[in-house]
Formats: sequence, structure tokens, C-alpha cells
Amino acid sequence: MVDIDGARLLASLQELGRIGALPGGGVCRLALTDEDKLGRDWVRARMAALGMEVSVDGIGNVVGTYAGTRPGPPVMTGSHIDTVRTGGLYDGNYGVLAGLEVVQALKDAGLRTEKPLAVAFFTNEEGARFAPDMMGSLVFQGDLALESALGVKGIDGTTVAENLERIGYAGSAPVGANRVDSFVELHIEQGPVLDREGVTIGAVDGVQGISWTRFELTGVSNHAGTTPMRMRRDAGLPAARVACFARDLAREQGGDQVATVGSMNFQPNLVNVIPNRVSFTVDLRNTDESILAAAEERLWAFAAQVADDEGVEWKRESLARFEPVRFDPRIIDLVERSARGLDLPVRRLPSGAGHDAQMLARMCPAGMIFVPSVGGLSHNVREHTAPDDLVAGARVLLRVLLELAGPATAAASPGRGKAGVVC
Amino acid sequence: MVDIDGARLLASLQELGRIGALPGGGVCRLALTDEDKLGRDWVRARMAALGMEVSVDGIGNVVGTYAGTRPGPPVMTGSHIDTVRTGGLYDGNYGVLAGLEVVQALKDAGLRTEKPLAVAFFTNEEGARFAPDMMGSLVFQGDLALESALGVKGIDGTTVAENLERIGYAGSAPVGANRVDSFVELHIEQGPVLDREGVTIGAVDGVQGISWTRFELTGVSNHAGTTPMRMRRDAGLPAARVACFARDLAREQGGDQVATVGSMNFQPNLVNVIPNRVSFTVDLRNTDESILAAAEERLWAFAAQVADDEGVEWKRESLARFEPVRFDPRIIDLVERSARGLDLPVRRLPSGAGHDAQMLARMCPAGMIFVPSVGGLSHNVREHTAPDDLVAGARVLLRVLLELAGPATAAASPGRGKAGVVC
Repeated sequence: MVDIDGARLLASLQELGRIGALPGGGVCRLALTDEDKLGRDWVRARMAALGMEVSVDGIGNVVGTYAGTRPGPPVMTGSHIDTVRTGGLYDGNYGVLAGLEVVQALKDAGLRTEKPLAVAFFTNEEGARFAPDMMGSLVFQGDLALESALGVKGIDGTTVAENLERIGYAGSAPVGANRVDSFVELHIEQGPVLDREGVTIGAVDGVQGISWTRFELTGVSNHAGTTPMRMRRDAGLPAARVACFARDLAREQGGDQVATVGSMNFQPNLVNVIPNRVSFTVDLRNTDESILAAAEERLWAFAAQVADDEGVEWKRESLARFEPVRFDPRIIDLVERSARGLDLPVRRLPSGAGHDAQMLARMCPAGMIFVPSVGGLSHNVREHTAPDDLVAGARVLLRVLLELAGPATAAASPGRGKAGVVC
Repeated sequence: MVDIDGARLLASLQELGRIGALPGGGVCRLALTDEDKLGRDWVRARMAALGMEVSVDGIGNVVGTYAGTRPGPPVMTGSHIDTVRTGGLYDGNYGVLAGLEVVQALKDAGLRTEKPLAVAFFTNEEGARFAPDMMGSLVFQGDLALESALGVKGIDGTTVAENLERIGYAGSAPVGANRVDSFVELHIEQGPVLDREGVTIGAVDGVQGISWTRFELTGVSNHAGTTPMRMRRDAGLPAARVACFARDLAREQGGDQVATVGSMNFQPNLVNVIPNRVSFTVDLRNTDESILAAAEERLWAFAAQVADDEGVEWKRESLARFEPVRFDPRIIDLVERSARGLDLPVRRLPSGAGHDAQMLARMCPAGMIFVPSVGGLSHNVREHTAPDDLVAGARVLLRVLLELAGPATAAASPGRGKAGVVC
């Protein structure tokens, strides 16, 4: 039975992690930097060595295709290899290298699947240098025009196009009209659920919808000692009330609803002065669009009410709004079955973070496999996943891909005939 | 009947306000600066011109004494002439110049009170350059050792002693053993109560006790999307809950209890990251020490509870704590009576801000007279009080001082004999 080589997978993660390694641990390979180029070159060379046909599209997405015994749209896996400024070894890279490990296992066993098997890495998933995040997969899928993406200026003022040219990844493969049979992304959870519960595999059932609102409250600054309570227009109070309400709302909605007040700014921010200007943000997420929309409505209505009660002017601004994504039920089932077939503890859970798979879900059946993040740490040089869990996740990926791509058979020559079923 | 000259009082306020005037309006005469020296010289010259005996003590407090018909401890009035960085014309200066106007009125009428009448201006009331505020009156009264005060370093690193020497106000009059018959300070309210209620005179019944607490909460930073509510240790939530509680507490205690959350700092302060470190302050004030202490206890207990509920570590630090001051009931009555005698609307109210009078209250019967601050604005170049109100306040001061210092009689020579009662 074909199997992945755990040691080889772990070694490849370490090897890619040396490109852009930070002195104290962790990795910095911001999208389209020289470090990203070195990482890309290294992965592309591995694809070529596996006999994959490698294409680079106009936004720099790289797809390596391992031919199947029949032609047609590929079953695709993959993720991204760009990192945040203080990234870890596994975020994104794991999904790409596990995909290549699956291909290597097949190749070593002299096998091919029925459908072609593609491993992709998408440009600028993190969004740490260029906005929006998930840029490459969004262009690949077709909802973001290539020209728009190419014109985006990054944090250093240079454009995506300039950097693609500079590092040699402005490819010619078309975007926006790709055909993909199905897509499965293997990724670290980036949250604490699996680790906390001792579950090895997450069958990701969707990606939470995101609503980011920034509130700005304007009251009247005054002396904290000489201004009676009834004469105040304290911009800080509605902010505090909304922060409490957001938490209560999330608890009340239950399920996977989360609400976070992450940013809060008081002016003039002095112990003995009533604040006249307070801004703060509320991050709401839910896998159900109608619940998310209802939560927004309740939050906004509450904010309006408490601001009015305090005689404080308020305005709100939407910083981001993404509808939730539901992954394909058959793929979710398949991930669960594959984990159980390997005697691995598995549970369904939503993804709280965004992933390339959610863009691919707009064009084909898609799903994700999660493995635990120790302590839930993410976007942090201390990001970690136990080696056994990394290997287990890759094994689940192998099973899922083989089922999606059809029986693995002895490979005579690509795209023709077939021999006996091996797995 | 002896009366103050309103136009002369207003002109003197304008004249002193030209020293250290700011380009866009307002005044900056930080304590013991060159501007403060010029202001001091100007006031001292006026005292001398009125025939007052001028003394300067070791901390730079200046007392001008207009002799009575009998020797003995003086009835004292006055305030301060230092300002904050963006001060107005009246804060402090008004009390000093109104005191001199009272003396001028007596002198012009050829009158003296029975007891000596002293007008003082105390060093560094504002505390904007050197801590603590009310430094001069605290040293004058004896609870702060002269040596300690002299050694205080200001915001520019130089000491009080160096600056007193530099500007020539390191005087030789003794501190800490002064005898004062009684003290009345005339001051702008610095709050909105009188202005809002259309009342001209405030009979100040006390100064609120102050409790400043700084809380520091330490939770765990994590991804706003991937961290379920039940797994959070959000340092922002207890801060918000305490801010709401502080308001509820003040409303519930009622009376003159005030509670202000003026400063709030989130880390890392990002929309999609649960804050791991939040610091904030609570400013509690009450004229009743037992109520203030009870409010502190309830606040602290609540903070401990909500931090524990959230699994967040917390510590608190006291930034300031002053017990409330109750002014002398006879002086409060006298202020009320004097205002009514002039057909001026009057009400009792506490002072939310600190004043030199609260230090003098530790050594003699003391009280204060307030006039309205338009819009309650204070420590602001837009600080304003209507001219009529300034004049009205000075008239009340005159009546109060005459009653405290005994009948004003035609002044033959100071400290002896007396003629017919004039007022």
C-alpha cells in the first residue's frame, strides 16, 4: 500500500524553512521578496524533479501537475509558501510540501491516479505585504481581475507587477478560466481546538464569514473631578458597553460565533480627563451568513443606542466583510472517513482564518484538513505542530486525494491505459 | 459703603494675563519659569504699592499683609498665579487679584479691618512642572517638608531649589509654623454646574477626595477568528466590564460621586488579535471618605472577579489618593449669606479639583467661593468666565473677608485704635 514517508516530509519542511529563516527561529518570506523567490525556486525544482508539469500564471501562482492515467481537470491540493513577518515553518508550506510528498510516494511506487494530481502554491496568501490576502487564489479563481492585482502597491510602495517581474514569476499561464476537478488543502489549524481536545485531524466544514467594524465615538472632554455624572458625554463609556455587549452576543449566539474587540484608542487618554474621542473595532465571525448578519445588526443597533444614551456622536465603518464559505459535504465526509480509516481522532470544525481553499470553493468542490497547532499559536515564530501530527495529516491527505483522483495504478505512461488497482 | 472696582479688577486680570500670553489666546506661566518670575514681580509690586508688608518664604510663597487695627494672625485670601501649559486668564490669578482688589478698595476708602488681611499666592499649585501639585500651600501648612519640596525635579530635570534661586524667590520667611486666622479662596469653578444651572456663586462645601487606580491586565494574545470564546483569556474584556461597572457604581452611589475611565491602552491593539495586555485607569472622587473608600473596595473586588472569570492576571497600582476635605461650616454659611445679601443666586457644591484652600483647611477654618466657568472648560485656553460673574465673586469675597476680619474702620495707623464701623 502506498504511503507517505514521514521523515522525508519533515526534512523537506525544515529545508524550506531555512530559506528566510529568522535568527531566533521562525521564518520571514514575505510575498514576492527575494526570500520568496528562493523558496519558489526550491519548490519548483522539486516539482520538476518529480516529473510534474509546472506552470506559472500571470499572478505568479505555480501549479505542478502529476499526470493521471486519463486527461481532464486535475484534483488539486496545495496552499502557499509566503509567510508573515514572524511566521513559522508550517503555515502554508505544510500543505504544499505534503502535496509533493503524496506525489513522491506515488512516483516511488510507480503509480498514477486516474485524474491528474496538481499541487499548487498561490501568491500572497498572507496579505502581509500586499492587500488583499488570498490574492493569488482569488485571481486564479477569477473573482479578482489580474490587472487589478498587478497594480496593487505593497507596504514598500512597489507594485505586485514590478515584483513579479523582478523575481521572474510573471508567468504566462492563463488565470480566471482554470478547470479544477476538486481541491483539498491541508493546513495547520492556527487555533487551539484540536490541540486542546487532543484530536489529530480536523475535517474543516467551512470558513467563517468575517465582519470587521470600526466605531468612532465623539463626546466632550472634561475634568474628571468637576463634571457631574449627569453632565457627561463620555466617549469611552459606549465603547466599553459595546465591548461587553459583543462578548455577551457571542456567548448568546453560541455555536462558532466569535466576537473580538481587539483595538481600542482613547483620546486624550489621561487619567483625569473624560475621553472625547474613542475608536475601537469589533471583529465578528460566523460560519452562517444569516447569523452573522443578525449579529451585526444587533451590535450596530446596540452601539447606536448606548451612544445616544450618553449623548455621544458615533459613526461606523466596515473594514472588511466576507461571507462564510461552506465546504463540499462529500469532501468533509471523505476527510472524516479517511481519518477514521487511519484510526486517527477526527472532528468537524470551522476555520476561523481565511485560506486559499475558500477561493477554490467558488469554482469546484473543496475542503480542508487541519492538524493541531500547539497552544493555538499562529503567525508567531513559536508556531508548532507535533511531527506525528504533521505525518498523520499527510496520510489523510494521501487517502483523500487518492479517492478523489481515482484508483492509483501502475503508471505505464501518463494519460493512457491502466493496470491493477493498488490503493 | 466700600465696594470693589469691577473695571479695575478686570483690567488687572488682563494685564497679568499678558505675561506668558500664548499666541492664540490663553497663558503659559509654568511654575518657577521666567514667565512665572515676571508674573510674581508684577503682583509683588502691586502688593507693595498697596502698602502691604510682603514676605517670601523658603518655597517661594508670597504673602502680602495689609495690617489690621489690631495685631494677630491674618485673615487670608489668595490662590496661585502659575498656570498649566495651556491655561486661561482666571484659574488662580482671579483669586489673587480679587484679594488685592479688596485691599485696594479698603485702602482707597481709607479703611482697615480689625484683623490683618493677607493675600497670598502659593508656589506650584498646578503641578504641571513639579509634582506634587499644591506644593506651596502644602509646605506653608507644614505637611510637606521644605527640604523634600526643594529637591523635587521637574519635567526638565532641574530642581525646585535651583529654579527658586534662579528667579530670586528663595525667600527667608519661615514655613510650617504660620498662624492664620482663617482662609477664603475665590476661584473659577472649572466645572459646568454653576454655568449650566445659571447660578452665580458657589459656596464650596468641600473638596472631593481623590482615588486614582491603574489596572494592568495580562491575558493571552490569540487569533480573533480561530480562538473559540470559551478558550479565550481576553485582557480587554475585564477592562470593559470594569469601565461599565465604574459608571454604574457612580450612578448608584449618587450624590457627588464621580467615576472616570480616562485612559485605556490595548496591546497589540489590532482588529483581529485578542489583546493580551490592557492597562486602564479609574478616577474616583467623593466628598465623603467612607463612601469613597467603599467605592474603591467595590471597584477593586469587581475587577478581581471579572479578571478571574476571564482567566486574566491583574494588578492594580494607586496613582494618587487624597482624603476629602470639608470646609468650615461657618465659612460656608458666610459665603451663602454674603451672596444672598448681594441678591446673587448661590448654591453649595463640592470642588472636584484640588485647591490651595484644602491645604489651608488643615491649619485654620477655610472655605472657597466659586464663580461659573463657561461650558465647564478648564485647563484650556478657552477657559472663560463672564465679567459680571468675576465682579460678583469679588464682591462676595469682600463681604466675607470683612466679616471674618472684623469691622472696617477708618485707618489711622495700622494695628491701633479704631473709628466708626463703615461696613
